[in-house]
Amino acid sequence: MRLSQFHLNTSKETPADAEVVSHQLMLRAGMIRKLAAGLYTWSPLGLRVLRKVEAIVREEMDRAGAIEMLMPSIQPRELWEETGRWQKFGGQLLKIRDRKDGEFCYGPTHEEVVTDFARNELRSYKQLPVNFYQIQTKFRDEIRPRFGVMRAREFLMKDAYSFHLGTESLRETYQAMYDAYSRIFTRLGLVFRAVNADTGAIGGSASHEFHVLADSGEDAIAFSDGSDYAANVEMAEAMAPGARPAAAEAMREVETPWQRTCEEVAKLMGIALARTVKSVAVVGEQGFVLALVRGDHVVNEIKLSKVPGLAEFRLATEAEINEHLGCEPGFIGPVKPAKAITVIADRTVAAMADFVVGANRKGFHLAGVNWGRDLPEPALVADLRNVVEGDPSPDGKGTLRIARGIEVGHVFQLGQKYAEALKATVLDAEGKAQVMHMGCYGIGVSRIVAAAIEQNFDANGICWPAPMAPWQVAVCIINPKNDPAVVEAADALYAELQAAGLEVAIDDRGLRPGVMFGDIELIGIPHRVVVSGRGLEAGTFEYRARRAADSENLDRAALWQRLGLA
Amino acid sequence: MRLSQFHLNTSKETPADAEVVSHQLMLRAGMIRKLAAGLYTWSPLGLRVLRKVEAIVREEMDRAGAIEMLMPSIQPRELWEETGRWQKFGGQLLKIRDRKDGEFCYGPTHEEVVTDFARNELRSYKQLPVNFYQIQTKFRDEIRPRFGVMRAREFLMKDAYSFHLGTESLRETYQAMYDAYSRIFTRLGLVFRAVNADTGAIGGSASHEFHVLADSGEDAIAFSDGSDYAANVEMAEAMAPGARPAAAEAMREVETPWQRTCEEVAKLMGIALARTVKSVAVVGEQGFVLALVRGDHVVNEIKLSKVPGLAEFRLATEAEINEHLGCEPGFIGPVKPAKAITVIADRTVAAMADFVVGANRKGFHLAGVNWGRDLPEPALVADLRNVVEGDPSPDGKGTLRIARGIEVGHVFQLGQKYAEALKATVLDAEGKAQVMHMGCYGIGVSRIVAAAIEQNFDANGICWPAPMAPWQVAVCIINPKNDPAVVEAADALYAELQAAGLEVAIDDRGLRPGVMFGDIELIGIPHRVVVSGRGLEAGTFEYRARRAADSENLDRAALWQRLGLA
Repeated sequence: MRLSQFHLNTSKETPADAEVVSHQLMLRAGMIRKLAAGLYTWSPLGLRVLRKVEAIVREEMDRAGAIEMLMPSIQPRELWEETGRWQKFGGQLLKIRDRKDGEFCYGPTHEEVVTDFARNELRSYKQLPVNFYQIQTKFRDEIRPRFGVMRAREFLMKDAYSFHLGTESLRETYQAMYDAYSRIFTRLGLVFRAVNADTGAIGGSASHEFHVLADSGEDAIAFSDGSDYAANVEMAEAMAPGARPAAAEAMREVETPWQRTCEEVAKLMGIALARTVKSVAVVGEQGFVLALVRGDHVVNEIKLSKVPGLAEFRLATEAEINEHLGCEPGFIGPVKPAKAITVIADRTVAAMADFVVGANRKGFHLAGVNWGRDLPEPALVADLRNVVEGDPSPDGKGTLRIARGIEVGHVFQLGQKYAEALKATVLDAEGKAQVMHMGCYGIGVSRIVAAAIEQNFDANGICWPAPMAPWQVAVCIINPKNDPAVVEAADALYAELQAAGLEVAIDDRGLRPGVMFGDIELIGIPHRVVVSGRGLEAGTFEYRARRAADSENLDRAALWQRLGLA
Repeated sequence: MRLSQFHLNTSKETPADAEVVSHQLMLRAGMIRKLAAGLYTWSPLGLRVLRKVEAIVREEMDRAGAIEMLMPSIQPRELWEETGRWQKFGGQLLKIRDRKDGEFCYGPTHEEVVTDFARNELRSYKQLPVNFYQIQTKFRDEIRPRFGVMRAREFLMKDAYSFHLGTESLRETYQAMYDAYSRIFTRLGLVFRAVNADTGAIGGSASHEFHVLADSGEDAIAFSDGSDYAANVEMAEAMAPGARPAAAEAMREVETPWQRTCEEVAKLMGIALARTVKSVAVVGEQGFVLALVRGDHVVNEIKLSKVPGLAEFRLATEAEINEHLGCEPGFIGPVKPAKAITVIADRTVAAMADFVVGANRKGFHLAGVNWGRDLPEPALVADLRNVVEGDPSPDGKGTLRIARGIEVGHVFQLGQKYAEALKATVLDAEGKAQVMHMGCYGIGVSRIVAAAIEQNFDANGICWPAPMAPWQVAVCIINPKNDPAVVEAADALYAELQAAGLEVAIDDRGLRPGVMFGDIELIGIPHRVVVSGRGLEAGTFEYRARRAADSENLDRAALWQRLGLA
């Protein structure tokens, strides 16, 4: 592409209303332009990148045996009534009335439409399994669209839906999609983790989220440094750190007149926060419960709600705390409560000795507390907390690390939910109607572009992974208007690199070198080759990789090698 | 593609609610499925064809220097208010309110959005000319959606918009787009005509429609058999057939007691309809006017309205006719009216001698009427009628033929209409702000698929032009379950043809030959190759071109030749 024939429109200024780096750089590079809240035009430059992602997604979906189709963006209310989602989907569903007062929505997803298609198209188990996909525009009426295309209202999505007779076939296709997604993000050159989003319910359906790791990610992800294990921090299982040591100290009261939090107590006593225990008073179906986690840990409410009797727990009131523990909040603990209560402990707390807890006496804590000696063993030991960096990996391999991630893909075993609601059946080998099992598999195509930037940028702009770059190579011409020999040499190089199969942008706009180089760095071209009069004389090209600190003067053979052609 | 791994779902029955052949065959072939009125899902088979069209359109747009981008489908009301089209566009505009009560529409076209983009992106004449295009989903809320994807509400369109400083540059890009469109429809293998849709106003903007010729087309098109000339029948200029012959007959009254129409009079008299003249009484700004066209011609109201004084004409009432001509309708004519009237004649009528007209006397017509002798020369001679087959071509080359066409493309010189409304200016070489000139260029990508079928089908189904076919070749396996040698030979052929660059479907579904052949014909694969045990023994393949009457047994070399590989 000759940049003089292209529409490139960069800016040095960071737009005031762009909060995240990807949004800022996409605006500065001129990849997107805002039309209205959450609605973006993809400029020619932006679209080139979007199409790169789309092409890789398509190739890997095809390779995995999925079949591409295309469903309408506008969907009739009637189908959404059949699944009950017309009401349940909430405000993100953009509802529309046509000129005949028919009710429709702009599809935020296509489970209803594809299941309607399937119930008409699929009659026999012989047609199964089948996996339909599309790459298509979706709309979700976000309350607060933000971060550019990261959370836009109109966006490009790849959505796939598979249909099966029975769960075994569903699991096979699910695995094939999991593998395809791993290939897609690998080919895109992104650092990612497949995160187990399983709810853990026995016999429940499986689900994985694919996250691109980036400091700005909205989700915290725990992953093992010794295996493929990864999960949302809230979902990851926290393991016991090891066996409980023997008691070494006697229990004693410590005066803590103003110290109510574990942090304050540990500071006063000059001990590690990890030696304190936090008491959380809640009320469940069987009454008052004291849940214990280590002072430096965070209670996980989802895990707590899985304890028998706490499915719909609430925090205890100050009055209830006074009644059961005989003390106000800030100094409460499991030792010698005023009334008989249930004490449950996180696995880590159950494995502690000589710990510090509130004394159930205003202005005092207890130190050197030990299970079985100073208070009964807990009624229940369970996983009650969020994992932290350094926890053992739940799969027994390696140690957990925590990173932030941007969700760009999701695979899900839907089971029979939609097929049942829409009565999507096929005849089995015995001629009996069977409700189909379904999987669904989504990728946020436009979001990937933003996520890739969040992971790959520096002070000068975007640093595309080569497979996503608008062009792999930029050939920059110094002073094209006054140096025909340089133009000729650059044109020859341009033609030669294209013939070798590279996507090349030749910067023939005649800009000053500094401005030209700034553009090429900002838009993130992986390889820059400068053709100048000086270089021609020396028989060299000035080469610089996007992330390199300096440029080098290379002869043809060396340049070819850097471009991966030799 | 192995058809056992694909989703093919054909039907023998012609759907009751499909009126046109393309709609019937697309449903029978399983290319599309209706979701709601005017909303269609493209099945995997249908999408393959749609993508073929899309790819050719994209290649030729790129080749012509247009730059692809992507605008949102949802557009804010504010922009449409700036051009006044929020009201003027009418009921086809699907209006939407979002959750914050903001008003939007689903874009039926993108002049507003692209001009808004351009007024922000383009600052200097140096950035011009530029031609942006997108291939994107549009929505028009048709009152009566019909004919499947031919007139759907949601459809796929290629729309391009060019921006210029001045009209000369606009004309150049317009011509480049005209040429690109001609290449696109030629490459698609369609018979088409570029139809002059110019309004003819002096200095007005140019416009051409591209029509695929098909008997079922909604538009009648006149085109020359001796040149590229083509126009809508209503727009084509009707020329005079030649000089007026000398008078040969005396004027005489003919009794026509019940004969009021030219057809009835000609029949009674036993003469050609082309010897009669029809009198149409209208009232314009200067009063009563009698317009004359030949008995076998049809008055063109647009042309009539261009006669000075008739810009807003209406048909005369019976009372006005009686008043001015002294006779009731059915027997009226230009000879000896009761009052002084203006008589205007179509060019053909002005060149007639010895013609037949109403006598202005109930129950009588006049025969042998001649200009200048029996009545004054007409006050005005003009083109007042639709062209007919056999008329001379207006460009002086050849004779007009009439065909029916389906509009699939439209190129238009918009001028400054939108740029002015949206204040889209650039600085010229003198640093002065200039309103840009614009062109717009649309192609109905999804409609092309239907139009191609209307032009290419037979009793057995679709006959795709090769560039649009889902696959070029079908390899059919006879009895795959019981004949491993046949399967092996078919697989080898499949691999070999793919390696040669052809898109091949191998029918490995194990259907009975008749059913399999019926499917392959219905879905319109250009080349069918049958691999059977008998053929293997004889060393031949059974080959049949889609439109051929019979199949032939060919050896490898002959088969290669038929497939265009030798």
